Amino acid sequence: LGGLHAIPRSEYEQRCERLRELLLACRLDALVVTAEANLRYFAGFAPHLYVSPTRPWFAVLPLANEPFAIIPEMGLADMRRESWLSHIDSWASPRPADEGVSLLVEALLALPRRFGRIGFELGPETRLGMPIADFLSVRDRVAGSLEAADGGALVQQLRGAKSSLELSFMRSAIAAAQFAFDSLGKRVKPGLSEDEIYRTFQADALLGGGERTPYVAIGSGPDGYDSIVRGPTTRRLLTGDILGVDTGVTVAGYWADFNRNMAIGRSCEEAHFAYRTLWRAQEAAMKILRPGVRASDVWRTMADLLPSASSSVGRMGHGVGLDYTEPPSIHPNDHTVIEAGMVVTLEPSFSYLAGGASGGERFMALEEDFFMTDDGSVLLTGRAAAELPIV
Amino acid sequence: LGGLHAIPRSEYEQRCERLRELLLACRLDALVVTAEANLRYFAGFAPHLYVSPTRPWFAVLPLANEPFAIIPEMGLADMRRESWLSHIDSWASPRPADEGVSLLVEALLALPRRFGRIGFELGPETRLGMPIADFLSVRDRVAGSLEAADGGALVQQLRGAKSSLELSFMRSAIAAAQFAFDSLGKRVKPGLSEDEIYRTFQADALLGGGERTPYVAIGSGPDGYDSIVRGPTTRRLLTGDILGVDTGVTVAGYWADFNRNMAIGRSCEEAHFAYRTLWRAQEAAMKILRPGVRASDVWRTMADLLPSASSSVGRMGHGVGLDYTEPPSIHPNDHTVIEAGMVVTLEPSFSYLAGGASGGERFMALEEDFFMTDDGSVLLTGRAAAELPIV
Repeated sequence: LGGLHAIPRSEYEQRCERLRELLLACRLDALVVTAEANLRYFAGFAPHLYVSPTRPWFAVLPLANEPFAIIPEMGLADMRRESWLSHIDSWASPRPADEGVSLLVEALLALPRRFGRIGFELGPETRLGMPIADFLSVRDRVAGSLEAADGGALVQQLRGAKSSLELSFMRSAIAAAQFAFDSLGKRVKPGLSEDEIYRTFQADALLGGGERTPYVAIGSGPDGYDSIVRGPTTRRLLTGDILGVDTGVTVAGYWADFNRNMAIGRSCEEAHFAYRTLWRAQEAAMKILRPGVRASDVWRTMADLLPSASSSVGRMGHGVGLDYTEPPSIHPNDHTVIEAGMVVTLEPSFSYLAGGASGGERFMALEEDFFMTDDGSVLLTGRAAAELPIV
Repeated sequence: LGGLHAIPRSEYEQRCERLRELLLACRLDALVVTAEANLRYFAGFAPHLYVSPTRPWFAVLPLANEPFAIIPEMGLADMRRESWLSHIDSWASPRPADEGVSLLVEALLALPRRFGRIGFELGPETRLGMPIADFLSVRDRVAGSLEAADGGALVQQLRGAKSSLELSFMRSAIAAAQFAFDSLGKRVKPGLSEDEIYRTFQADALLGGGERTPYVAIGSGPDGYDSIVRGPTTRRLLTGDILGVDTGVTVAGYWADFNRNMAIGRSCEEAHFAYRTLWRAQEAAMKILRPGVRASDVWRTMADLLPSASSSVGRMGHGVGLDYTEPPSIHPNDHTVIEAGMVVTLEPSFSYLAGGASGGERFMALEEDFFMTDDGSVLLTGRAAAELPIV
């Protein structure tokens, strides 16, 4: 198979075999996927042009037949080269009046019918890669024979456990982000703007082996920042600032998601205390993080060590993989049992009052990525220093 | 207003004023937007964390009231700082069982009701930024009072005409991409891999002023490539290759979309002829490209000059702006009248038979970006050379 990252056919066949077990358990005759991550996962090919909303792409994964794809003609050469699927239908796109809809309807109606139900990406934490009017049209046109049901949860369950090959891509993405963090540590100084950090961090991550840098968040301010989910501003670093950078680098579609904090020259004791507290909360969670524990227990372990368990972020970690955030959430109400093969982040955060002259509320987060082995967990990211680094 | 790019409040107010005229004409009481580009366009703020599918974001633009937003709590600090909207509701997310749905339903039911219809992003070339199950839940819960209708087309109409400020962002994105092309021209040589080109092109575009590089497509091969919509492979350039790179750089969310071709050392006459033919087709189209002409006429002008009017790409250009591709399509069946303020690409392409020892079918495309003035068009991209460049 072509493309930058060779994934053996056997791995796709295993994914489809596991999918069939879930389709059977969920009483579905097939799964239809349209999301970039799911096309990549099941078809071994997501269109590079997924950024354009003009053309949808479909992979159909039946319970009883071989999987196949229905795609815009433009993608045929690439998909034939890169995908393991041998059956690919296409239409001459753009054709807004029938953008693959009739082909998909015909294909679904022609499938062997056992349960009369087809899974689509409908539920929590999914996005459908086609216009909703077209989805509703498909649903209505098959309605006499087939019911459209949610297949999102079973996809999330399948994708949760990573193979060793998937893990190697995540390690590469993490290494690229680490390269950018190392470079940032050498470059950071008063006068550097968030905007410059944003662009050079991305460039460094790319030159360090990353393929895309879809997310780099930056916060800076005296004795702390107030958001770790925002883009850069024109603000320039000053002595006494804390800088927080969270990323956001992918290799073969797989994400790294961790952050680093540093103080420019000095910082107030409250910020040092916040950092130390978050780091210790992570240490405690690392001790219990293993298959069998519940996401909510991991949350509780960290929350018990923080001055305030409530943070606007709403959770203290999540799954990572072909999406930047995947289930489960490290959240008091998410009782998902952690399983071997999952990659999850530990990301405690809380607000504190800055002790310096500036005063006021600040926010801090720490984040690392972990792989679940059969009986424990392995830290994938280089562990952040135990004390707030001063640069 | 904060953020990297100051857009005056008056511009947002003008957008909303024009939107109200369209809402009235389309008999809609409000428009609800969830797509990243539309949040940016109407609310002046798209969450940096839009890459995560965990949390949806809503902006509601009523016919009779002030616009407002309903967002996850995590985004409050950033949106209050960067958005011109003063009314922002939030919920503690993640909360998969009710991820903003109840708040949105209540807000919609509380709106002044004139037509009993609410516009959502449903139609061609839209993607909804929330799970479909949640959209269907909203639709069902307001169904006694409000009908969900398509508002996608009116958003596309509004966003079609770019302001001078929007145009300046597009010019910056184009300049950043041009910087990367210039740098590539100096760096390219036999032995360089597509993968290296992919990563250094992005890094150069970022250092040249780009903010994101969500799309860089690369094709290479002896006497031509076979796809201009694919990602990089490990293939290394050889003398006699043609390299084609298409991008894909954004500033303030606005895209540049143009490509460049170059031959490594030499190329066959058939490739030179293909390039020259495409370039001349663009020249002819440039002469008629102005407000009042139909997209299909622009297509016909180019098609008449090409040996084969049929290409798997299916169109010969499209709108560009906050999305990489926007309506209209330069397509025989798209009779949209080109209007002042639009930015469109001219992107003829066709397949040819390579004349070198390698033989076989190759593909070539040329693409430039144009802004529609009141009575003509202005080339935004530096015009590609009239003959296939040899490097």
